[in-house]
Amino acid sequence: MNVPESVRWAADARAVELLDQTRLPEEERWIAIRDAAAMATAIREMRVRGAPAIGVAAAMALALELAYATSLAPAEFRARLEAAAATLRAARPTAVNLAWAVDRLVAVADAHRDAAPGVVACKVWGEADRIRAEDREMCRRIGERALGLFPAGVVRLLTHCNAGALATGGIGTALAAVYLAHEQGRGVRVYVRETRPLLQGSRLTAWELSRAGVPVTLIVDSAAAALMAAGSIDLVIVGADRIAANGDVANKVGTYGLAVLAAHHGIPFYVAAPSSTVDLATRTGADIPIEERDPDEVRRGFGRVTAPPTVDVWAPAFDVTPAALITALVTDRGVARPPYGASLAALFAKDALAAAEASPVVAPGGRA
Amino acid sequence: MNVPESVRWAADARAVELLDQTRLPEEERWIAIRDAAAMATAIREMRVRGAPAIGVAAAMALALELAYATSLAPAEFRARLEAAAATLRAARPTAVNLAWAVDRLVAVADAHRDAAPGVVACKVWGEADRIRAEDREMCRRIGERALGLFPAGVVRLLTHCNAGALATGGIGTALAAVYLAHEQGRGVRVYVRETRPLLQGSRLTAWELSRAGVPVTLIVDSAAAALMAAGSIDLVIVGADRIAANGDVANKVGTYGLAVLAAHHGIPFYVAAPSSTVDLATRTGADIPIEERDPDEVRRGFGRVTAPPTVDVWAPAFDVTPAALITALVTDRGVARPPYGASLAALFAKDALAAAEASPVVAPGGRA
Repeated sequence: MNVPESVRWAADARAVELLDQTRLPEEERWIAIRDAAAMATAIREMRVRGAPAIGVAAAMALALELAYATSLAPAEFRARLEAAAATLRAARPTAVNLAWAVDRLVAVADAHRDAAPGVVACKVWGEADRIRAEDREMCRRIGERALGLFPAGVVRLLTHCNAGALATGGIGTALAAVYLAHEQGRGVRVYVRETRPLLQGSRLTAWELSRAGVPVTLIVDSAAAALMAAGSIDLVIVGADRIAANGDVANKVGTYGLAVLAAHHGIPFYVAAPSSTVDLATRTGADIPIEERDPDEVRRGFGRVTAPPTVDVWAPAFDVTPAALITALVTDRGVARPPYGASLAALFAKDALAAAEASPVVAPGGRA
Repeated sequence: MNVPESVRWAADARAVELLDQTRLPEEERWIAIRDAAAMATAIREMRVRGAPAIGVAAAMALALELAYATSLAPAEFRARLEAAAATLRAARPTAVNLAWAVDRLVAVADAHRDAAPGVVACKVWGEADRIRAEDREMCRRIGERALGLFPAGVVRLLTHCNAGALATGGIGTALAAVYLAHEQGRGVRVYVRETRPLLQGSRLTAWELSRAGVPVTLIVDSAAAALMAAGSIDLVIVGADRIAANGDVANKVGTYGLAVLAAHHGIPFYVAAPSSTVDLATRTGADIPIEERDPDEVRRGFGRVTAPPTVDVWAPAFDVTPAALITALVTDRGVARPPYGASLAALFAKDALAAAEASPVVAPGGRA
């Protein structure tokens, strides 16, 4: 299976390499990042995107920065660490995974505050690799759990935006089951909505699936209904930006309409996302703030003026899909089913978490 | 009311002028067409589009061509007429209105076969002006009938693609009621879906409404569901490419999904179209052939590569909205209501047609 990576160590480990997502699908260009400042710029410029991928990439860059700073005196080394961490955190202030990954590395450094810079650097590097490995494992668990929901035989599924390998350090969230099905030789075809305004579906999802040899068909966003009516879709699977305690899901604008269409056509609608996406402190979808995007993404998104230059635009980044339209929520911790309040509470109760961590999922092929 | 025109006579009547729709919204450029061949090219290049507008423009160009050929001998004049008619018909072979308009002019010429070329030219010119006037009247009747369905107070409506002034010789079909409401000082706001892949919504509908001073808000196609959930839409109104005897409607891809969303949110869904769109010989929507478009309209529509260059694309031009999802069908002949089979049959029965033609609709303002 040739699933593209979003971020990797350079062969000589002297750089973190990012697959420049702003150049896809026109060009497959890897850029070498040599310090935290360069990574912060790359994150701000969306050369790497997707909450899990950003967290992994930031951790790797911070580890690299410190590994090159071990000749500094301890106090200077510590100052370097703090400056680099601050630079990375500021790159996308609302990206929870980014701050979370940086904080984990700083905590490791804190735990070895009296050790030599070389030791601290090694410990931080190890933690960055752990974050990366955990992310891969998270993707695989989501994929295995979602695959268990697929019907027998060839599966034709529809997805929105990019919740794939490019958004994570592994094989994706919503697309993870697709890659596992393809690896097992099960027939699968993915219909991808292009996902206006930023076209993550056509630019990224269609690209990464094609690259991995998975059959793909691209459609404009509004062709989804006709595709369902034609009987061409067995299930819908999408990612999530945030999942509320009652099972409401905030995800890329267009997700909610797709869920309404799936319900109308009697097609299962699955949401697959990292457990970090589940926020039990958010009661319902109504409590999730919805970011508004720059109107020019709609008015002149292709480098051309495609609308009257000053026309009013309503451009929410996300919408909220009510739990009632969702067949199941698939996380690395397990699958939640309606009623979601109870199901999510059970999955994410503290003792349930401990139990889940003690017993790794075993994949059909025997992999942990 | 400053509703843009799609086609007009030049001030000195020495040319037919087209508002070049391929340059909108970047530039408002009128091009002068001086003969049938130039009009055929303009139609082929989509500088004028929309079935009614194409019919009107072709008729005007044919009339102009003949008015400049009256010094020819009768046989040569007749040959010129036939060549020009053939050139125009071939410009878009599937456009029924185009052939219908050209045929009407040829029939008038046939009826005056023994008259001098100057007389034939005048008769043909008169018929072209009649086609144009009828088109304007058709738009106004549709608008008045649709306006009768609007609720009291400020109306916020959602539309798809372009069924406006630019698509006709008048004030449009789906948008006609909007212009009439605006003219009467009733509050109205139109939410426009950009309508991928060719963006007729953002390029044309948003432009013509803005130009006429009607409040417009542009959205990406997939934001419609969230907009409805927010309670921001009172009704949906769209055009039609073909209406079957049972009330099923073929229209721009995306229309069907919009109808499903409207039904889910309890929002009325209206289709407004010329009576020429109603095809009682087509039993249901399943009998309407759906044209597939060039995949590159999705893969590289704006001069940029927005998808893997060879990725499979499903690109239907239209979809079919089942009659069950449609609140009412508004035509210049009258408003059809469910059950549509009986309602359309009654409206389009031969004696009903004759009655409708004998008693013109009187507008609120007293205009016929």
